Amino acid sequence: MVKKVLKFGGTSVGTIARIQHVAKIVKSEKDLGNQVITIVSAMSGKTNELINLSREISKNFDRREYDVLLSSGEQVTSALLAGALIELGINAKSWLNWQIPIITEGEHSNARIINVNIKEINEFIKDGVAIVPGFQGISKDGNVTTIGRGGSDATAVAFAKLFNAETCEIYTDVEGVYSTDPAKIPVAKKIDKISYDEMLELSSLGAKVMQSSAVQTAMMYNIPIEVKSTFTDREGTVIFDQQNIDYTKSVTGVAYSKDDAKITLIGVEDKPGVAANIFEPLNKAQINVDMVIQNISSDQNTTDITFTIKRQDLLKTKDILDNNKKIKYKKITHNDKVAKISIVGAGMVSTPGVTFKMFKGLAENNINILAISTSEIKLSVIIDEENTLNAVKKLHTIFDLD
Amino acid sequence: MVKKVLKFGGTSVGTIARIQHVAKIVKSEKDLGNQVITIVSAMSGKTNELINLSREISKNFDRREYDVLLSSGEQVTSALLAGALIELGINAKSWLNWQIPIITEGEHSNARIINVNIKEINEFIKDGVAIVPGFQGISKDGNVTTIGRGGSDATAVAFAKLFNAETCEIYTDVEGVYSTDPAKIPVAKKIDKISYDEMLELSSLGAKVMQSSAVQTAMMYNIPIEVKSTFTDREGTVIFDQQNIDYTKSVTGVAYSKDDAKITLIGVEDKPGVAANIFEPLNKAQINVDMVIQNISSDQNTTDITFTIKRQDLLKTKDILDNNKKIKYKKITHNDKVAKISIVGAGMVSTPGVTFKMFKGLAENNINILAISTSEIKLSVIIDEENTLNAVKKLHTIFDLD
Repeated sequence: MVKKVLKFGGTSVGTIARIQHVAKIVKSEKDLGNQVITIVSAMSGKTNELINLSREISKNFDRREYDVLLSSGEQVTSALLAGALIELGINAKSWLNWQIPIITEGEHSNARIINVNIKEINEFIKDGVAIVPGFQGISKDGNVTTIGRGGSDATAVAFAKLFNAETCEIYTDVEGVYSTDPAKIPVAKKIDKISYDEMLELSSLGAKVMQSSAVQTAMMYNIPIEVKSTFTDREGTVIFDQQNIDYTKSVTGVAYSKDDAKITLIGVEDKPGVAANIFEPLNKAQINVDMVIQNISSDQNTTDITFTIKRQDLLKTKDILDNNKKIKYKKITHNDKVAKISIVGAGMVSTPGVTFKMFKGLAENNINILAISTSEIKLSVIIDEENTLNAVKKLHTIFDLD
Repeated sequence: MVKKVLKFGGTSVGTIARIQHVAKIVKSEKDLGNQVITIVSAMSGKTNELINLSREISKNFDRREYDVLLSSGEQVTSALLAGALIELGINAKSWLNWQIPIITEGEHSNARIINVNIKEINEFIKDGVAIVPGFQGISKDGNVTTIGRGGSDATAVAFAKLFNAETCEIYTDVEGVYSTDPAKIPVAKKIDKISYDEMLELSSLGAKVMQSSAVQTAMMYNIPIEVKSTFTDREGTVIFDQQNIDYTKSVTGVAYSKDDAKITLIGVEDKPGVAANIFEPLNKAQINVDMVIQNISSDQNTTDITFTIKRQDLLKTKDILDNNKKIKYKKITHNDKVAKISIVGAGMVSTPGVTFKMFKGLAENNINILAISTSEIKLSVIIDEENTLNAVKKLHTIFDLD
């Protein structure tokens, strides 16, 4: 007998037929004698529908009421799945955020789960299945809150931790984590095992399988996660501690993002505090700066600073740089037709020549590298956007991922 | 300064534009210095949508989960209206059933409000507007419940009573209570004032303005109600105690229902217990028997019993009567093309000749009366369905309602 947290995403519960299918999956786990807690998302499209209703009323809809509004989506799925399980003869029961309760802290729409009363559910799952709405909780003073980044994945990981569950299974509409985007690169392969670190790099780089903050929490408490498809029986991707993985390959996956823009400030005064002067106002304006590279300029007293941002923030960023008196430079250039390509792998550290291999591969395809950034398990380059798929395919091949 | 409960039905909050309109009505009450508690229904169509989802899963959907499911509809409206009011600069706040809490007793989908914690809301409405989801509450052991007959109207009346409100205004999509159906009989007139008794007779007879059980509660606690339109500024219909009404007319309204069927049992043994034998199995099968008339038969030892039921129950009723050995009769006849026409008026008691006037009016139009039933403030007849509008028009005219 194993205690399991199963989480089903929006597309997995998007129709009544799918909810009935999910009920069968949950029943089969129960029939195996497992203790099961099921976390559900809102039916696909529902959360956006509610968000759009709020926007019709105000671009600045009250945050407290926004959370009351949005939390109704998972409430509906919880009741429907509980009803579907009862119809299959399973003793199932939905809990609402306040009935458990799930206590959160932090501001509305961006709260974090800090405690969950496990007593009643622990008792119930001895012979029943508990259904819990993801993405929400209540504050200490009894207001409904929703969880920001991480959403229902974060609820699942928090429950796995607090209930001391053996495993946390994230059911979604893909079969697991892939070596690159399977929709664009048909030779992409499902990864059987991946470390938390690698998963974090991949999920923040655009492999939208699981939310980063939920992976972070799982890493912090060493909770093994399996990402798998609701729609096939095949095994998914297990995400766990690096030491459990036998690395035969230096690179685990190739990720890319296509909504980046690059800005270069040429001839910036080379003295302490200059970088801070540049990035402080961008931070205040909530512009997320991704890669930063500083080169020595030809002129000995100045330097060139290149950084990347989301493409949608380009105009705002240029405005700030143009109008801020503290920021001095000779010239500013930008390029909004760039893409970021990253190779990720916990095996990179111990494999010499990965960097050289990457640069050589891109050069062979006449792809010019505009900027480079490295970390222990990741190597990212900025290239012209038009070369994206070409570059991803080449790297996928030379690192033996096809 | 007056304490008011305002209730808005499903069509009144059916779109964002309508919710914004409702927010303006609520704001204008607040601007007058009134203390306002607003009860809202689910957006029109939403409750049916949720019911249909549950039916796709099971015709016998778990009652507890059904209430969790359905209660989400009013939660959505509450948050949207609160957001719309805040957008207008009003200090507004939604309360969920458990946050107040609204305590109910009785079974799921048919609970009754027995207590409401008034403290926090009473404090808040000193300068803010409280928004409350109608149609729901929680049981003493913390399960979500919905209210059966009466729905959000019942919530409004219960709040008016428990908060000791001066008035309870039911905003709907009609301008008030009419002397008969304005859609079919253009000379129908809005009634300015009506007693609880008359309203009860009218609402149970098919004038679907307000739920009967909510009117009953209002009568019991003498809570004045105003039914009015969300979409015009005109005054609605005030429902209150009979003694406050100056009756210049003997008849207040003419109601009709068209989904009745009539059954006559001819030659039933005329001895004690016979009627009970007939109606007991119908009651068990949840068939609602409306009018019952017993005539003396030509044969001295037998009697004829006529009763009316909903047309949809006709087959089931005939089956029961045919197969129950305890029920003996010579012959059974039925007519499923009948309508019930009722004149209602608290002034009828003190006005002689109302009955005669009704029968004479129908006779003048060659309308045959198939059965008659009377109460203190109501006189109903069963006639052939094809004569319905003809009869209603005639009665509306002869009782000076045009």
